[in-house]
Amino acid sequence: MKKLINDPDRVVLESLAGLALAHPEILRVSFDPVYVVRADAPRPGKVGVISGGGSGHEPMHVGFVGRGMLDAACPGQVFTSPTPDQIEAATRAVDGGAGVLHIIKNYTGDIMNFEMAAELCRAQGITVRAVVINDDVAVEDSLYTAGRRGVGATVLAERLCGAAAERGWALERVEALCRRVNAAARSMGMALTPCTVPAAGRPNFQLGPDEIEMGIGIHGEPGRERTRWRPAREIVARMTETILADLPFERGDRVIAMVNGMGGTPLMELYLVYGELQPLLEARGITVARRLVGNYVTSLEMAGCSITLVKADDEMLSLWDDPVLTPGLRWGA
Amino acid sequence: MKKLINDPDRVVLESLAGLALAHPEILRVSFDPVYVVRADAPRPGKVGVISGGGSGHEPMHVGFVGRGMLDAACPGQVFTSPTPDQIEAATRAVDGGAGVLHIIKNYTGDIMNFEMAAELCRAQGITVRAVVINDDVAVEDSLYTAGRRGVGATVLAERLCGAAAERGWALERVEALCRRVNAAARSMGMALTPCTVPAAGRPNFQLGPDEIEMGIGIHGEPGRERTRWRPAREIVARMTETILADLPFERGDRVIAMVNGMGGTPLMELYLVYGELQPLLEARGITVARRLVGNYVTSLEMAGCSITLVKADDEMLSLWDDPVLTPGLRWGA
Repeated sequence: MKKLINDPDRVVLESLAGLALAHPEILRVSFDPVYVVRADAPRPGKVGVISGGGSGHEPMHVGFVGRGMLDAACPGQVFTSPTPDQIEAATRAVDGGAGVLHIIKNYTGDIMNFEMAAELCRAQGITVRAVVINDDVAVEDSLYTAGRRGVGATVLAERLCGAAAERGWALERVEALCRRVNAAARSMGMALTPCTVPAAGRPNFQLGPDEIEMGIGIHGEPGRERTRWRPAREIVARMTETILADLPFERGDRVIAMVNGMGGTPLMELYLVYGELQPLLEARGITVARRLVGNYVTSLEMAGCSITLVKADDEMLSLWDDPVLTPGLRWGA
Repeated sequence: MKKLINDPDRVVLESLAGLALAHPEILRVSFDPVYVVRADAPRPGKVGVISGGGSGHEPMHVGFVGRGMLDAACPGQVFTSPTPDQIEAATRAVDGGAGVLHIIKNYTGDIMNFEMAAELCRAQGITVRAVVINDDVAVEDSLYTAGRRGVGATVLAERLCGAAAERGWALERVEALCRRVNAAARSMGMALTPCTVPAAGRPNFQLGPDEIEMGIGIHGEPGRERTRWRPAREIVARMTETILADLPFERGDRVIAMVNGMGGTPLMELYLVYGELQPLLEARGITVARRLVGNYVTSLEMAGCSITLVKADDEMLSLWDDPVLTPGLRWGA
């Protein structure tokens, strides 16, 4: 295993130390327990928005802490859920008296630990609401998940709810928005290669030299199908058709689209994928109103991509355009 | 070879088509000849800033076209110089009457083709100046280069000169700034893995399962030394010491620092590298005044990183903070 690390057991802590040094104007890092929080938290009267999950998906979630997005993020070990004490401490750190929203990707361990933390916080008088993101159309009931996995829509939910909280929306309204975004979002991923969790020291699955996996999970959970390599055009068409049929998306819809790299895919290829996606959508009468192309929900150095579409209304598009200033996403700030 | 592409011969064109669809508010793409140009070019009275080079290093250069950075970029085939007709057409497209600066990485083919294009433009009455970037301390006279290679400092020069041109500086002053940035900048890179150029279909060099290469070039040109894997702390110390001794950087200096990923390195590792770098600099009395951590000058899916330091003065830091709005770099816009 060749990685730019010192000690597999300290990779998350040492990476967070670098994150803190690199972005002092945006965030700070607590190391006991471990969480990342906005430099100006808590903000009195503002709803706090928190997410978290296993590390190794950066910039999600720690790179999305900042103005117009998350108030705090709770990173677990690589591909491992954060513990309830991390989530409880982060929730307390961002509570400005207006309550806190937990945005949780649908993995069994994450849900259990966020629920325990929410109970602990409620016992201390903090109002906590939780929304589970489950946008992955590829499979039901995967390796670590009952029901559908939470993937790319998490980024879009964090962005939109973060913007809403920044505008001063009440907790119930931010929560309702988050449910609306999740209900309107669908994603699917694929992999060209596996990745290696530092503490494991070997690839998390095997793919032949000419094999790809459609519907892969962000921890390498099995997808829908292994096939021989296909041209990007066919891969994008297959993913897009599966996504569109599921909601379903319809002629006249406007969407926020994300073409996301899994970590080891050159940006050149991600733009090529986007160049296949948008014409496919236009041919169905679907307008891409906003988009992201880049690495947002990664799986360490896995090569591959995912596509996320959210059927967007005027309110979502307006929130999307609000300023955001985080290490991983920024504009108009 | 497994990549998200359709046809190895069309990967650059198809990727640019996606770039154009994704960022219509920032840039447009000419396909005959091929160049990427700001959506609002030419800007009357503003100095034009252009760069270019082989593709496969994205976001450099095409992802740096936009307000506060490049007016145009000329992408060649993967790891191949752009042709003079591309550069000539791009220069004409951005000439607003105040002249055009060519920022050229020191590779023999790039220099030759930029020089030919400059001659063609001068014959048409356009004032063109050129600055060659040669910041790589690793080796002299590499595979495609006489003298030192141009690497990470190119990003910083494009940013600072782009900001200066946006402020309305005259061509001579933007050119002088570019020379000053290059003279104050030093970089070094390393690789954990090779990468595969689509048209070649196989890795551009070989590294053993426990081998790394220090001083690698961005096209996989041989570096200083192949060694066994070392902890990140040792790798960063070795690169930093080489860089610091070369200028030399001295106690009391303020620097703009870039920790750059080669394309296939997880962001988690890049932040870990930054967490090693800053304390090393502080221990020498060198202050990191500004920094970038991420993928800026990539080599397709190569795993590895580079470090760039620029000794910065007040003027450079002020320019750095000006708004920038490009696909690959944006703030304050």
